[in-house]
Amino acid sequence: MINRLLKEIQKKNAPIVVGLDPTMKFIPEHIKQKAFSVYGETLQGAGEAIWQFNKGIVDAVYELVPAVKPQIAMYEQFGIEGLIAYKKTIDYCKSKGLVVIGDIKRGDIGSTSTAYAIGHLGKVQIGSETYAPFDEDFATVNPYLGTDGVKPFIDVCREEKKGIFVLVKTSNPSSGEFQDRLIADADNRPLYEIVGRQVDEWGKDCMGENYSYVGAVVGATYPEMGKVLRSLMPKTLILVPGYGAQGGKGADLVHFFNEDGLGAIVNSSRGIIAAYQNDKYKDTYSPVNYADAARAAVIDMKEDLAAALGNN
Amino acid sequence: MINRLLKEIQKKNAPIVVGLDPTMKFIPEHIKQKAFSVYGETLQGAGEAIWQFNKGIVDAVYELVPAVKPQIAMYEQFGIEGLIAYKKTIDYCKSKGLVVIGDIKRGDIGSTSTAYAIGHLGKVQIGSETYAPFDEDFATVNPYLGTDGVKPFIDVCREEKKGIFVLVKTSNPSSGEFQDRLIADADNRPLYEIVGRQVDEWGKDCMGENYSYVGAVVGATYPEMGKVLRSLMPKTLILVPGYGAQGGKGADLVHFFNEDGLGAIVNSSRGIIAAYQNDKYKDTYSPVNYADAARAAVIDMKEDLAAALGNN
Repeated sequence: MINRLLKEIQKKNAPIVVGLDPTMKFIPEHIKQKAFSVYGETLQGAGEAIWQFNKGIVDAVYELVPAVKPQIAMYEQFGIEGLIAYKKTIDYCKSKGLVVIGDIKRGDIGSTSTAYAIGHLGKVQIGSETYAPFDEDFATVNPYLGTDGVKPFIDVCREEKKGIFVLVKTSNPSSGEFQDRLIADADNRPLYEIVGRQVDEWGKDCMGENYSYVGAVVGATYPEMGKVLRSLMPKTLILVPGYGAQGGKGADLVHFFNEDGLGAIVNSSRGIIAAYQNDKYKDTYSPVNYADAARAAVIDMKEDLAAALGNN
Repeated sequence: MINRLLKEIQKKNAPIVVGLDPTMKFIPEHIKQKAFSVYGETLQGAGEAIWQFNKGIVDAVYELVPAVKPQIAMYEQFGIEGLIAYKKTIDYCKSKGLVVIGDIKRGDIGSTSTAYAIGHLGKVQIGSETYAPFDEDFATVNPYLGTDGVKPFIDVCREEKKGIFVLVKTSNPSSGEFQDRLIADADNRPLYEIVGRQVDEWGKDCMGENYSYVGAVVGATYPEMGKVLRSLMPKTLILVPGYGAQGGKGADLVHFFNEDGLGAIVNSSRGIIAAYQNDKYKDTYSPVNYADAARAAVIDMKEDLAAALGNN
């Protein structure tokens, strides 16, 4: 899957992942009203609205980008009905040829991480039958529990030819509170570097053609740290959140890429899926044309990245 | 909810939480066969078997313990159908007067943590209606993203009178890989202490009668670290996993408690729910009597803890 993801990035000339993080306030009224008219203002109604909203976005952008990243929390907040919309979204994106990165940030003790890995990337055994419950292509993983919380994901990825992105340095303002602490027994280097080195280590036995299927998450909002981490993890694909709404700019992203022009995939969520609400697009696109606005935002993001990376 | 949990611990004289972490191999054949005969060897069949298994355990132990802790991964591995069993289990446990700790270990950037907090502990707004999707009483939270990943949970807890347990030092063998690293700018104290101090700090504005509703997770497998963390977080209720199957013993647990005899609640999962498979119980209890074996294991655990805590 790592090879396929990289090929799709090259084919579409877009190191871009669209974050499918729908919230009620991003969904245009006409979609909500249609869903509520059938299911009422219920969890099921919300699930239907999310699914229809996502479908519109996916139809508008699938030819332009290699991957999508649904953030499971945005579905889980609507309980079972939200998770049904999450699963429908995964299946639909895959039917459109998109690589699906489940932003699940799971991580637990060994046997429990195995359960998460099976549920999201692998297959579960029931009697003599097996099923792939959520079946994302990649998942994000939280490393706080150490190797035995991450290894079960790697084992399932090896078997299923899938991949993970391990949180190394997250994009949020307080990510430094623990991640930036200087480690005394590692030449006073920050914790995120220790985690990054470990990601590189885990990835050594997990190589695709040029990159490993153990990737890393490093926020666009910390470009200098991205530069250091890029050099510490040369074979690691970096998933870069924080572009756009969170403040990261195209020019900040250069350091996340390798000299081969690859090595990073940049996520934008709100900036694309809610583009019709942004000043830049709202005069051109009405809420009814939210998907066209999303498409325009993807094209603009492609240009921004291409200009920054100098291959315009 | 923190006050209620502590009162229930005292009333039942049991600082014990039963981990409802069902796996197919823990569920007796008669339950699986009954479920599969109706739904086949499907995800739905697995969900039904889990739910019936849990119901048996809960009926056998609810009078003896204050709380249960379903590990959501064990349900999520069966996809939507597993999560339906998770929700049924929560609702049933609450109807039996049990406090429900959702072992979800979520944590993300601010807006995303808000979604998790709403979905598990709070209420989500859909048009003019509100719903409490999963509605656990407590949830476990991963701190790797720092304050803005944890704060949204605290905000929801304040509003809903619920609580969280933040991962500080986890029970698994490799937890030290990152959690034990010595922090140069904090007198070379380990990271878990830094996180523990932060939990104490977060908890100061979140006080119940004697304990805060921002708790901590510290593994029974690291009793010496538990001792230090107990003193660093005097008002924090510590959720202690790792007793029994993972190797923690009653005598190891003394240091997790305060002088008031409170301050900790000890989890056992396999040791209780799969007691009928353990050497100690398997000659007395057949798989059909798995719930009676679980009850016996709870009674033995109560005695083990009472002896260790000296209030036998």
